[in-house]
Amino acid sequence: MLNDEKLLARGLARLNEIDGEAGEAVMKALADVAPDLGQYIIAFAFGEIYTRPQLDLQQRELVTLAALAAQGGSEKQLHVHVQAALNVGLSREQIVECFIQCVPYLGFPKVLNAVFVAKSVFADRDEA
Amino acid sequence: MLNDEKLLARGLARLNEIDGEAGEAVMKALADVAPDLGQYIIAFAFGEIYTRPQLDLQQRELVTLAALAAQGGSEKQLHVHVQAALNVGLSREQIVECFIQCVPYLGFPKVLNAVFVAKSVFADRDEA
Amino acid sequence: MLNDEKLLARGLARLNEIDGEAGEAVMKALADVAPDLGQYIIAFAFGEIYTRPQLDLQQRELVTLAALAAQGGSEKQLHVHVQAALNVGLSREQIVECFIQCVPYLGFPKVLNAVFVAKSVFADRDEA
Amino acid sequence: MLNDEKLLARGLARLNEIDGEAGEAVMKALADVAPDLGQYIIAFAFGEIYTRPQLDLQQRELVTLAALAAQGGSEKQLHVHVQAALNVGLSREQIVECFIQCVPYLGFPKVLNAVFVAKSVFADRDEA
Amino acid sequence: MLNDEKLLARGLARLNEIDGEAGEAVMKALADVAPDLGQYIIAFAFGEIYTRPQLDLQQRELVTLAALAAQGGSEKQLHVHVQAALNVGLSREQIVECFIQCVPYLGFPKVLNAVFVAKSVFADRDEA
Amino acid sequence: MLNDEKLLARGLARLNEIDGEAGEAVMKALADVAPDLGQYIIAFAFGEIYTRPQLDLQQRELVTLAALAAQGGSEKQLHVHVQAALNVGLSREQIVECFIQCVPYLGFPKVLNAVFVAKSVFADRDEA
Repeated sequence: MLNDEKLLARGLARLNEIDGEAGEAVMKALADVAPDLGQYIIAFAFGEIYTRPQLDLQQRELVTLAALAAQGGSEKQLHVHVQAALNVGLSREQIVECFIQCVPYLGFPKVLNAVFVAKSVFADRDEA
Repeated sequence: MLNDEKLLARGLARLNEIDGEAGEAVMKALADVAPDLGQYIIAFAFGEIYTRPQLDLQQRELVTLAALAAQGGSEKQLHVHVQAALNVGLSREQIVECFIQCVPYLGFPKVLNAVFVAKSVFADRDEA
Repeated sequence: MLNDEKLLARGLARLNEIDGEAGEAVMKALADVAPDLGQYIIAFAFGEIYTRPQLDLQQRELVTLAALAAQGGSEKQLHVHVQAALNVGLSREQIVECFIQCVPYLGFPKVLNAVFVAKSVFADRDEA
Repeated sequence: MLNDEKLLARGLARLNEIDGEAGEAVMKALADVAPDLGQYIIAFAFGEIYTRPQLDLQQRELVTLAALAAQGGSEKQLHVHVQAALNVGLSREQIVECFIQCVPYLGFPKVLNAVFVAKSVFADRDEA
Repeated sequence: MLNDEKLLARGLARLNEIDGEAGEAVMKALADVAPDLGQYIIAFAFGEIYTRPQLDLQQRELVTLAALAAQGGSEKQLHVHVQAALNVGLSREQIVECFIQCVPYLGFPKVLNAVFVAKSVFADRDEA
Repeated sequence: MLNDEKLLARGLARLNEIDGEAGEAVMKALADVAPDLGQYIIAFAFGEIYTRPQLDLQQRELVTLAALAAQGGSEKQLHVHVQAALNVGLSREQIVECFIQCVPYLGFPKVLNAVFVAKSVFADRDEA
């Protein structure tokens, strides 16, 4: 029932608004191996969670960046969400600061990994 | 040199402002076993990181809550920082929402652990 | 839209079938602090994921036990899912073996933590 | 004493049966830097754990896939064990479903990482 | 074949030398639920790994304390190994310093959890 | 105040002594995206923690290698610290043994990841 058409449409709109091309690329890559998984991300994460009113999109992306940096091994997803964070209006300085705020809680290695993802996204944007 | 007096004073002021009694209790518990560790938390985390201007204190606490929820096994520190989040003006609803935002990235178990910490802090406040 | 009534009813039926009282207790504990989170667990995890045909319930619980043991710090959820594993027909021996299979991949400490959760569930059942 | 010849022979037979060439490649890569480590994997993991009767090989691989997906950062080992899962008779659909079952417990990023490893193994097989 | 008598005897001797009563208590707790797991710890960890000559016991315990602190959620095992570290001649100061050395790599929460385990072991010893 | 000149000078001297070119490369890579983060590593990690007398540099690197191996996803930092471990006088055999000591606590995958980092550093040194 998570394939409800209204929910998927709402989720897809939100996904495009936030993740843009990066999100679309993930969905495309899933299409031949686990299309349902793509639908769950659209319906549950974007159709449901990201449309809740209690936090705004900038707050949601700060939370997401911190969760991904903390988790480790999620560099690909961090790559998508650094772009998402820029898309919803966070500055480069705020994104880097989000990771610096994590240093006392996560130590330097996880923060360095996250900062170097940000550096690579920023470089891509500068080139484009 | 992290025992620089000005840095420690600035850190202690910030620690008291944010963590209140909960932070003081941690420092006290460290006093006989690892007092230097307490000083590092005060000087580095609170004297330095928490006084940087790029994010405000509400943003910093959202980031911290997400990082601690993601890390797992940090329930004691989450307990301190749910209180800190309330102290800097985040609502109960925003704190719970921060954890709900983490569901797609961390799954339910880590989020449940974090929400039950929040529930216990809220209950303590209601009683007091 | 995850509050779709049919989805919730289907999820609740599955939750009761698998987790029994232990699942109900989690929902109850969430009621005053994050009721939506309880609904997401029912609708998404049980209404959607656990009703998919590609793996049977015993396979799903083996996978869940391994994921929770690996994650660490999820002892409360392991407690629910050791009961769930028994409820769907896995034997005590198979549950313990699931954790022993994890030793080469996770090391002894995470496996010991999981086995001691199983031991406590088994003891509760023997008493009842 | 883990260099007991019978144990090593039994382990090597099982390793070849399950992991095939992928396992052999790991042993070869270890030969000049940590040959004992290779012996421990053969003797302890394959000679001992994988020959226990309480779970069958398909169940053991489901457990292993979940543990590795949960752990994060184990993409290389997942690569070996997606092949192993196919070798012991699990279908591509069951392997992907094992990871989808993990979504509620681990969140989307770890599951996406695992699914993309599976996708790459499937593509290699299609080419071969 | 990990139930080889010589290997088990050698492992048990080493376990008693290093972990003392704390190790014995773990084995006893496993006896009714997963006795093989206890044997694997004795044979593989203590009979094999801890008898290798390349590092001495103090170095091995420093490594173990760091690995357990880093892993998180392994407080019970840290409790055993802080005692083990004292048993092989590391000082309280060195044990605490091992955790302080981890701060830049792991952040404060995991280090605080480990230091408070050490504090509790030290207090038990002072009482005894 | 962590930009205290004396502290930075002391930290830089220690960083160069331990990490050599590898550390310098990290600082350089941070220069345009998060220069403060580089300063914190120099001032806090190297100026402060690594100059404490309670453990010697070989012990500190053993602890660091274990913490990084345990953390997972820190291969880049492991790469720096395997070099650091060699720089402070640990032998290749001791470095590999540090990881083998971690097997019972972390399982094989994290240890394999760490050993293959060591293998790559050793190969670089042999070439140079």
